[in-house]
Amino acid sequence: MKRLFLTAQAAAFACLLSAQAQEKKDYPQPEPMRPGMSEYWTPQPKVVAPGDIKQAGAPSDAIVLFDGKDLSAWTNADGGKAEWTVKGGVMTVDKSKGDILTRQKFGSFQLHLEWCVPKGITGESQARGNSGVFLQDMYEVQILDCYGNETYVNGMTGSIYKQTPPLANAMRAPGEWNVYDIIYTAPIFKEDGTYLYRPFVTVIQNGIVIQNHTEIQGTTEYIGFPRTVKHGDGPIRLQSHGDPSQPISFRNIWIRPL
Amino acid sequence: MKRLFLTAQAAAFACLLSAQAQEKKDYPQPEPMRPGMSEYWTPQPKVVAPGDIKQAGAPSDAIVLFDGKDLSAWTNADGGKAEWTVKGGVMTVDKSKGDILTRQKFGSFQLHLEWCVPKGITGESQARGNSGVFLQDMYEVQILDCYGNETYVNGMTGSIYKQTPPLANAMRAPGEWNVYDIIYTAPIFKEDGTYLYRPFVTVIQNGIVIQNHTEIQGTTEYIGFPRTVKHGDGPIRLQSHGDPSQPISFRNIWIRPL
Amino acid sequence: MKRLFLTAQAAAFACLLSAQAQEKKDYPQPEPMRPGMSEYWTPQPKVVAPGDIKQAGAPSDAIVLFDGKDLSAWTNADGGKAEWTVKGGVMTVDKSKGDILTRQKFGSFQLHLEWCVPKGITGESQARGNSGVFLQDMYEVQILDCYGNETYVNGMTGSIYKQTPPLANAMRAPGEWNVYDIIYTAPIFKEDGTYLYRPFVTVIQNGIVIQNHTEIQGTTEYIGFPRTVKHGDGPIRLQSHGDPSQPISFRNIWIRPL
Amino acid sequence: MKRLFLTAQAAAFACLLSAQAQEKKDYPQPEPMRPGMSEYWTPQPKVVAPGDIKQAGAPSDAIVLFDGKDLSAWTNADGGKAEWTVKGGVMTVDKSKGDILTRQKFGSFQLHLEWCVPKGITGESQARGNSGVFLQDMYEVQILDCYGNETYVNGMTGSIYKQTPPLANAMRAPGEWNVYDIIYTAPIFKEDGTYLYRPFVTVIQNGIVIQNHTEIQGTTEYIGFPRTVKHGDGPIRLQSHGDPSQPISFRNIWIRPL
Repeated sequence: MKRLFLTAQAAAFACLLSAQAQEKKDYPQPEPMRPGMSEYWTPQPKVVAPGDIKQAGAPSDAIVLFDGKDLSAWTNADGGKAEWTVKGGVMTVDKSKGDILTRQKFGSFQLHLEWCVPKGITGESQARGNSGVFLQDMYEVQILDCYGNETYVNGMTGSIYKQTPPLANAMRAPGEWNVYDIIYTAPIFKEDGTYLYRPFVTVIQNGIVIQNHTEIQGTTEYIGFPRTVKHGDGPIRLQSHGDPSQPISFRNIWIRPL
Repeated sequence: MKRLFLTAQAAAFACLLSAQAQEKKDYPQPEPMRPGMSEYWTPQPKVVAPGDIKQAGAPSDAIVLFDGKDLSAWTNADGGKAEWTVKGGVMTVDKSKGDILTRQKFGSFQLHLEWCVPKGITGESQARGNSGVFLQDMYEVQILDCYGNETYVNGMTGSIYKQTPPLANAMRAPGEWNVYDIIYTAPIFKEDGTYLYRPFVTVIQNGIVIQNHTEIQGTTEYIGFPRTVKHGDGPIRLQSHGDPSQPISFRNIWIRPL
Repeated sequence: MKRLFLTAQAAAFACLLSAQAQEKKDYPQPEPMRPGMSEYWTPQPKVVAPGDIKQAGAPSDAIVLFDGKDLSAWTNADGGKAEWTVKGGVMTVDKSKGDILTRQKFGSFQLHLEWCVPKGITGESQARGNSGVFLQDMYEVQILDCYGNETYVNGMTGSIYKQTPPLANAMRAPGEWNVYDIIYTAPIFKEDGTYLYRPFVTVIQNGIVIQNHTEIQGTTEYIGFPRTVKHGDGPIRLQSHGDPSQPISFRNIWIRPL
Repeated sequence: MKRLFLTAQAAAFACLLSAQAQEKKDYPQPEPMRPGMSEYWTPQPKVVAPGDIKQAGAPSDAIVLFDGKDLSAWTNADGGKAEWTVKGGVMTVDKSKGDILTRQKFGSFQLHLEWCVPKGITGESQARGNSGVFLQDMYEVQILDCYGNETYVNGMTGSIYKQTPPLANAMRAPGEWNVYDIIYTAPIFKEDGTYLYRPFVTVIQNGIVIQNHTEIQGTTEYIGFPRTVKHGDGPIRLQSHGDPSQPISFRNIWIRPL
């Protein structure tokens, strides 16, 4: 017979089954409880209607950041009009226009976005479909065509850039759409500007967990160590980076503040 | 002009921009670095081919626990043959046969499963489409028809049963399929049987985050406080619980050890 | 020969030593660095002069809450004058006057206090030298004479009351002074009033670690489950609880906000 | 009147007091409990007799690593006899003999040690009383004479070397004894050699918290980024580093496995 070793800690109570317990049978036991003592009815969580998954539909409480029609939720890096190309429900980087950022700022959130590099894309390592999504405009989750394209692992698709490699290479081929589902917990700073709690992120690419509640060390620097920069809510930034002749595209972008 | 207050901690280095920094300009600065110093190429993560999301397809490295054909990956609670009904790519609870468990045991994992209560289901509160998925056979993520059906919130669909309510009620209507994507981190125990690190779980229902790296307090007891029970790897258990005349069904179940 | 398996993650870079690495010797290595690249000089931490440990002296930046002379840093539970007995550098509970609280409120902190139950104290279990120190007026670290006096373990000296027992019974005998050094990290709440991060506490009694970065589940209730109560900074509360004929005493109380 | 917003999560149950609750007064309340339901008596923690704090005495369950008499608990770096100088209850670095390590290996622990640099010590920055204590022979807590001696802050006394500066400069003057109380939680590794949970450390110098449950990023490298190196239990290493003409001394070293 399987004998479990039961013990107790922190709001967890023991029912000792072993011989040891019998020796100590003179200790009082916790008084018995009834089921209704551990049932509470309020507050009832909000009702959120799911989207149609096959259509990448947003849940009913999501803020739609790109619905295929226009870039009204975005600005360029100077706060002016975002001018990437919009066509056929898809927006495509225009490298002459630089990065784009959401008008709205966010703390912790769930973010959905889809991206695609053109079929027949060329280039190697970082020079192939390079872009990125910056959480709170501070921390980059890398976007890159890593389908049959090796690079430094902390710069792969789904890496926390120059920090943590993804758990897997979950790429779809060029011309196919990749899906990112990102769960982000914003950092908490002490008054002196250092982290009390660093940011955390979970990234699911095409249904595969590639970052599992990964602690972000600091800013995602191209050169040198991560830095600690005190900040509050911030926008989502999409990076204009790759070869302008074979630009990356995005679609179906929505976010749910958590 | 926006002035960031930069400071530094733990592998994070400061570039002070402020007047304060100018007063202290006699302190040495870290030596400059080059990009290639923070790029590493090994080990390359494994390549995992995504499934077809529209078909709920499993990633290439997943262990398929139910592919619609048979229950060969499962046993009943006594270790014998699992005897729920299999028909049309779907398995359905047979309450006379009790719970079923995977033959294989797991530590940390990513689990995908889909479940559906019959259209026209009746009953109230907990008496309506009740089931559950037990992680490592210890910790229950509740399954219940909460579509227009209130119950105690720490017993709702997606709750850590009798512990933590879901962040949202993300139900689809009876007759429609609900999707659970569960990311589970197994606990670590000290030698004395208490938790060094408790288990954690993220649950996404129908694309909506309903548990966000929630710490599981201990076992999910119907009566009383969570308990601490030392354990190792364990199977996935699906609960046979509800009204036998309107049984719950499951499909597309796969798991990826993490 | 011992072979270490080296790998890399999150700002940690690998130097692979094994045969496996030789097979992959065609991968680039990170560029070499110099020591000065990982040395930073600002901000310099504040200088704090230690107290005389043999005299239980407070560090130079501590806020002295009781220096043996008066209760000017304290109020009673109604905000009025604190009226416990002060004599010979020691303050002693006057049960007719109830609990006392610091005038000042605190977030995270390091707290030092000493307490003593009278020699010859009588009573059993909880009825023997019962008091407590409430962190932020919310979370009780139990004080009790547990020298040769058993009680429920989650109500022992050094327990997080009705939650987590101490790692050891580190009591000195009645008539001797017990020392508490408490490192407390205040919780962070979400806007909806639930915990984003729960409080944590380390307790050292008489030089022995009895709580090691223990997560506090919620309020420390005499009856029922811990509760979640949104709060900000709060005072330190000392409990008036035990037998009025054999009251507990305190001395050398200081705090350093962290 | 102050109105607390009460809510509930994770084994924490709500008693709603507000108007909002009155609107929803038709929801059931948890059944009332009795105090004895949340009291458990087993397992009783071990009794540990405190040492005499004024004498830096070890608790009764501590492993004494240096009691002032000999180095029998230590080896040199090659596993041979430790040959530092022992005199007058104190051991002093002999630089010609190199580092010393404990014969015993440890996981998580509480460590007490005292160290002293000679009165009249000279030198600047890192060249002044340099030593260090390596936890599990992997992670260095720096020892340096920082009394009126500035250096890079992530190399100061009490820093996690080349990672995290101390929260304060808590130095005593040369010729006086400094006390380190270190609470260390060993890391947990995944099978692939990466961290599942990194190590954590709290350091108290002369009664002042200078590291507060700080996460250790990886090995403490003189050059470059922290590395991830899979390891098990390991010894305590004391570093032989400074100017041989003015060597550092140690006394009163004991450890308690946690």
